[in-house]
Amino acid sequence: MSKLEYISYFRPEIDNMGGYTPGEQPKMANLLKLNTNESPFPPSPSVAETLKNFDCEKLRLYPDPTADEVREIIAGMFGLTKDYVIAGNGSDDILTISMRCFASADKPAACLWPSYSLYPTLAGLQGAECIKINLTENFELPVDLLAQAKNANILFIARPNAPIGNSFPRALMAEICREFKGIVLIDEAYVDFATDSCVDFVKEFPNVIISRTFSKSRNLAGLRFGFALANPKIIEGMMKMKDSYNVPMLTQAVAAATLRDPAYFADCVAKIRLAREMLLLGLYDLGFKVVESETNFLFASPPDGDGERYFRALREQGIIVRYFPGPATGKWVRITIGDTQSVARIFLATREIYKEYGQDVYEL
Amino acid sequence: MSKLEYISYFRPEIDNMGGYTPGEQPKMANLLKLNTNESPFPPSPSVAETLKNFDCEKLRLYPDPTADEVREIIAGMFGLTKDYVIAGNGSDDILTISMRCFASADKPAACLWPSYSLYPTLAGLQGAECIKINLTENFELPVDLLAQAKNANILFIARPNAPIGNSFPRALMAEICREFKGIVLIDEAYVDFATDSCVDFVKEFPNVIISRTFSKSRNLAGLRFGFALANPKIIEGMMKMKDSYNVPMLTQAVAAATLRDPAYFADCVAKIRLAREMLLLGLYDLGFKVVESETNFLFASPPDGDGERYFRALREQGIIVRYFPGPATGKWVRITIGDTQSVARIFLATREIYKEYGQDVYEL
Repeated sequence: MSKLEYISYFRPEIDNMGGYTPGEQPKMANLLKLNTNESPFPPSPSVAETLKNFDCEKLRLYPDPTADEVREIIAGMFGLTKDYVIAGNGSDDILTISMRCFASADKPAACLWPSYSLYPTLAGLQGAECIKINLTENFELPVDLLAQAKNANILFIARPNAPIGNSFPRALMAEICREFKGIVLIDEAYVDFATDSCVDFVKEFPNVIISRTFSKSRNLAGLRFGFALANPKIIEGMMKMKDSYNVPMLTQAVAAATLRDPAYFADCVAKIRLAREMLLLGLYDLGFKVVESETNFLFASPPDGDGERYFRALREQGIIVRYFPGPATGKWVRITIGDTQSVARIFLATREIYKEYGQDVYEL
Repeated sequence: MSKLEYISYFRPEIDNMGGYTPGEQPKMANLLKLNTNESPFPPSPSVAETLKNFDCEKLRLYPDPTADEVREIIAGMFGLTKDYVIAGNGSDDILTISMRCFASADKPAACLWPSYSLYPTLAGLQGAECIKINLTENFELPVDLLAQAKNANILFIARPNAPIGNSFPRALMAEICREFKGIVLIDEAYVDFATDSCVDFVKEFPNVIISRTFSKSRNLAGLRFGFALANPKIIEGMMKMKDSYNVPMLTQAVAAATLRDPAYFADCVAKIRLAREMLLLGLYDLGFKVVESETNFLFASPPDGDGERYFRALREQGIIVRYFPGPATGKWVRITIGDTQSVARIFLATREIYKEYGQDVYEL
């Protein structure tokens, strides 16, 4: 029999797209991995405890499809009821569900630019247009944002914004939520490192979705747990869209255990904020431009404005940061904040690379 | 300020649909839960071992986005390379990815009917038409299947079929795969309880996707792990569609551990097949019609042909089975096969309900 030939039956938009590229997970000795905003700290000791004592016999059964135990805890944290909460297999799952609910061939999405590059990728996968709204040169919201977003049915705003690290004024956010005729998804992946949140908006604005993740501030990127808060009518529709059993039983158990240890969480976040301020001051002194960060990373531009060169020079020393080519971001790199030791290592490496620019006041 | 009113921004097809209803997970004392085809047996002891020894520190990092370790093991089992394999957060994730890749407003999906009711639900969520192709009265493939499926771009065939339990001839399946101008997704969720598989088709037919799950024969419904096998070009496109980190780190570790214990797996499957034959014979003797099953459930119709009455009568005794109303399925119930004890319990309860029909030959 003759060999049958491959013919593509993919939707053309899938064949024509490159797909989202996650930050690399390289395997090198003495590697300092500061490229995907993971936490330097292990998860709460309650996680190991939970796994050690987990009754594996239960795994033969399907998990709770709506993850009620975790949703109850989360709702309680924010003074809400659980019908305001949906749980996801990471916040990427939440973002996918939202895109699929509110965007389509005739309902564009919109997002800021630069921002989390997954938003336009998800729009592409959904066959929806993605209106990219450029931030100002200082990475602030443009004054004509609402006019630019007018035709969109869902507007994604990462606040604090990634890969930049700054936040946007709450009053401006409230105005956007009030005026925009569609869903405003405020992605608060980094909010635990910030000074304020828009989480209370879900009670006031029936068109707002707040998404959160355990990947950054809860030290649990490997777990895949995220959630969204929104008006119960929005949650009800999103529940239809999600896979029936989208959050595994182990994930539900570990997420609940983590939430029951707020002291450890607060301690880790405080340490990262402190390390962030240390590196910020150090890079300032080396002549860098650095965005004031409300996240667990710094967006930094070296004295010669050559982000790619800095990225490559760090890489040669086993320090992996994230570089985003392009006119708006090419002068910068994004550096994840680790512990104080990793801050010292990247500072020393950076000082060496830019010794001709440094003010030579450091003796370590 | 006046209270803002909720306005729906959902895509109209989402607002208009009911969503998939998973089998109920009731909480009653002395419950015998035979409604969602879960295994009566705990997962392999290697699972508890893996969780107990899991290095939780690693959970701060993202998981391997492509789950390479598990994919290597799976590929090896089938004499394939890992580019033939994609891993999912349960096989529902695989089905969702497939529907999104190959169906859209102008690319209908098709499925048999009755079959897994998630297929039309997923088509609805994708805004795609779902062509339902009725099985014959004996739940076999209709002779004009290909003509009916002609306009579809993806055809879902559960083999063995759920909720019926029978399989379809391999030769017929091969003919369908050869002739159909689109993707044939063969859902082998129950294949480990069957006499044969179509898994070798992926080498011969570049338009075939085989999906598998750990929820049934691996006793791991709570874990959420499934996978698909297909031509590497199909896998490559599906990889673009999946969430970047769709399979959690714990899931990858547990799935790999399970695959390394084939003896336990074979033992559990053998026990369920034996219990299935016991119940089949028992129900025959009570005057039931029962489909010869290649799965871990029986599709059975009581002597009076009233599936709903049987479902309710069992429920009163704390035995939960699945009832699907409607002309094709209303005379039947679907009973998950548990261990021999649960088979004895449902047999005794059934004999009591239908004592007027029984041949009264049993003394237990």
